Amino acid sequence: MLRTKRIAGRFGLFSRKAWQYPRAMPCATITSALHTSSMTEDHIATLKVRRDRMMQQLHDTCQWGQGERWGSAVIDTGMKRLALTDADKAVRDWFVEEAKSLGCNVTVDEMGNIFAVRPGTNPDLPPIYAGSHLDTQPTGGRYDGILGVMAGLEGLRVLQENDIQTDHPIGLVNWTSEEGARFPITMISSGVWAGVVPLEKAYASQDVGGSGSTVRSELERIGYLGPRPATPEATPMAAHFELHIEQGPILENNQQKIGVVNGAQAYKWFTVVVKGRAAHTGTTPMDARGDALLVAARMINHSNVVANNSGALASTGILTLQPGSVNVIPSHVRFSLDIRSKSDAIVTEVEQKLKRDFAAIAQGRDVEGCTPPSAGTLPMEVTWATDYHSPAVHFDQGCINAVRTSAAGVLGSSELFRDMTSGAGHDSVNTSKHVPTAMIFVPSKGGISHHPEEWTSDEDCALGAAVLLQAMLRYDRGHNSK
Amino acid sequence: MLRTKRIAGRFGLFSRKAWQYPRAMPCATITSALHTSSMTEDHIATLKVRRDRMMQQLHDTCQWGQGERWGSAVIDTGMKRLALTDADKAVRDWFVEEAKSLGCNVTVDEMGNIFAVRPGTNPDLPPIYAGSHLDTQPTGGRYDGILGVMAGLEGLRVLQENDIQTDHPIGLVNWTSEEGARFPITMISSGVWAGVVPLEKAYASQDVGGSGSTVRSELERIGYLGPRPATPEATPMAAHFELHIEQGPILENNQQKIGVVNGAQAYKWFTVVVKGRAAHTGTTPMDARGDALLVAARMINHSNVVANNSGALASTGILTLQPGSVNVIPSHVRFSLDIRSKSDAIVTEVEQKLKRDFAAIAQGRDVEGCTPPSAGTLPMEVTWATDYHSPAVHFDQGCINAVRTSAAGVLGSSELFRDMTSGAGHDSVNTSKHVPTAMIFVPSKGGISHHPEEWTSDEDCALGAAVLLQAMLRYDRGHNSK
Repeated sequence: MLRTKRIAGRFGLFSRKAWQYPRAMPCATITSALHTSSMTEDHIATLKVRRDRMMQQLHDTCQWGQGERWGSAVIDTGMKRLALTDADKAVRDWFVEEAKSLGCNVTVDEMGNIFAVRPGTNPDLPPIYAGSHLDTQPTGGRYDGILGVMAGLEGLRVLQENDIQTDHPIGLVNWTSEEGARFPITMISSGVWAGVVPLEKAYASQDVGGSGSTVRSELERIGYLGPRPATPEATPMAAHFELHIEQGPILENNQQKIGVVNGAQAYKWFTVVVKGRAAHTGTTPMDARGDALLVAARMINHSNVVANNSGALASTGILTLQPGSVNVIPSHVRFSLDIRSKSDAIVTEVEQKLKRDFAAIAQGRDVEGCTPPSAGTLPMEVTWATDYHSPAVHFDQGCINAVRTSAAGVLGSSELFRDMTSGAGHDSVNTSKHVPTAMIFVPSKGGISHHPEEWTSDEDCALGAAVLLQAMLRYDRGHNSK
Repeated sequence: MLRTKRIAGRFGLFSRKAWQYPRAMPCATITSALHTSSMTEDHIATLKVRRDRMMQQLHDTCQWGQGERWGSAVIDTGMKRLALTDADKAVRDWFVEEAKSLGCNVTVDEMGNIFAVRPGTNPDLPPIYAGSHLDTQPTGGRYDGILGVMAGLEGLRVLQENDIQTDHPIGLVNWTSEEGARFPITMISSGVWAGVVPLEKAYASQDVGGSGSTVRSELERIGYLGPRPATPEATPMAAHFELHIEQGPILENNQQKIGVVNGAQAYKWFTVVVKGRAAHTGTTPMDARGDALLVAARMINHSNVVANNSGALASTGILTLQPGSVNVIPSHVRFSLDIRSKSDAIVTEVEQKLKRDFAAIAQGRDVEGCTPPSAGTLPMEVTWATDYHSPAVHFDQGCINAVRTSAAGVLGSSELFRDMTSGAGHDSVNTSKHVPTAMIFVPSKGGISHHPEEWTSDEDCALGAAVLLQAMLRYDRGHNSK
């Protein structure tokens, strides 16, 4: 109960409805109508969001999908807002109404992506979008995705209440089912938009809960199967900016506030299978074993050493074995291997070295950097299968510069932000295939995400939202038609 | 098909029934009625069994429970004779008839253990027993257990046809459900006899196949729930000898024929749980992880090193992890640890060292003999639970001597046999708690058992059976009442 109080205390009492908050109040130092083309750098740098309003709205709208209680430690901030559920429909309905009330035109495409657009002054220009997602993991938190959408709305609110005009329209997109938690394709709807996921494959994706529902049937059921094709032609963008939590500990550990995200890591997923020989644990001497688990353990440890030496990441998240009895030496071990680096070349280098070294380990040969086996080992077979490959993504330099300049303007000191590469996939990885894109990271407490304890301070959320807004305005100013 | 032919070819055509073989023919050099007390060492040393007859009977009776075909490689010697099934009943019925035809009295106790006893000349002495089991693993072979019973029958046959009289009665026991494969308590019925498994617990043990059958209901169903208590008082023994396959590679690797088994290893089973922290594999730097699987992998490798340095065995046969996703670092890993040595003190020493070292590994501290982590690690929690403890068993010196002398007599050269410790549990471990006991091992090809490829040459089976017979006669001679 202490824990409940401590965490709930961060957010106040959730008693007022979001729409009861005033909207028309002036914000920061902007006091009269302005066009971005006539705003000075100083004007833009002082443009902030209203922290308490944004955060109150974030928490209020988390009434839809508020997570189940989490074990004995009750954590009120847990979220379970799986894509295209009733909870998702409720927050979408709220989002549509809220965007309309801010003067936006709202359209929905055939993947249920919702595009809210505040008109610009130049009818020939496509919108500059902020975008992220309102769906969560089944045991998720309140920041992953949600913050990016709420910050976009707050930016639209600030533009409206300060009567700021932009050359490009300013848009906000809620991408459908980014998490891949209910329908097991991550970034599925930005993927369809970008042409990397076929529409029919996306539509056919089934609820992992076994209900038999598909993306298409659930889009229809909740009324979000829109008429517009999910393509860059039907919904063009001038640029896409995404504010997101880091989901890692780098900013926190370096006491920094903003990550200027210049791209996304390359990653490659493998399944490695080791075949040894089942034998009785009591009757088989150590030097007469084909212990597939012992060899797999040495491989996992070695992958960690090799990746670390190359500045890459290597991780095993799944491991299964056969036959699985206390007194039988495992004959078969199957494990996943996830290799990542911001450089495609380094991923390839680590992969190739590990393929050579695993083969040697399976044969009981000495491998540099790997403790030799304490006893001999029977030669074993090791096979690799490549399950997924996502090459490195490099965001647009113009968008990155807009974010970096905005971070400098908001934070004042270059020690408080850093360039970084996203370790995870995001909808921005898909948009970057077609339009100039960049991302903004804010710190994740303890690096935790996809967990009810996911948390980012109100201050950091507001700083990130200000950088998002300023970056969009700077991009507009830098790419207008004049 | 090549494989089928090669293996089937070892055994001939299986065309004649076991009971069609002649029994009254004289064997070896013994040509007239003799009492063991008046037999010379030379007499005993020349007493052999009839190899072809014994092996033909072994294979013929494997018609009951002949294994299913094994994948694409058809192996005709696979066995699936689960305890108390119809196949087990069939071989039991044959066993009872065969023993009676050899002049034995046959009784069945409340665990279905079948005792066949050939009378001795001294009515005050309890029988010297050979014993083993006729049940198999679901994918077992034809030698584990079965050989011991068949060799005992062949010994009785040799005694009968050579009209050899013994002071003690000579018995043969088929212990019910040694494997623990269908009812998951190994050595269950010798365990009840020895008082280490309560009768009610044994009776209540349920078919792992989910049929709902229990040991008791199946004993009743097949007609083998006997009236006699399963106790040493109700069924006394002067000694218990068991011929068994080694189930390991030591004899084969040393080109030896007989293992003089002086006891059974101590072993202790543990469940080790490592608790780290789930995190995204893409966003979490290597030095900010609480990777429970990486730490478990280092522990498993280290347990191998430590055990090997102490001449002990350490094995992990089961490992499970959570949450189990390619891109999530495992937060929880649970693995089994099986530590064995012929010395109780060494098991304890390895256990204590590993408890200290695992704690250090979980904290990321350096441990001698264990590669340090390539990057830092978050401190993790490690807990141990003891699941099972079987202290070292030391067989009876008199029985061991009888086996060793017989091995020397049968083999001629001390280079062809060795003293050894059983790595696995056997019914003899239970009998040794009450009566003088020893075991005889014969080589297992490739160390393989509990598998259709389990195989021991006819020659080695016959050598083992001769040692069994001679050891019983020597024990009789050495422990008669004169």
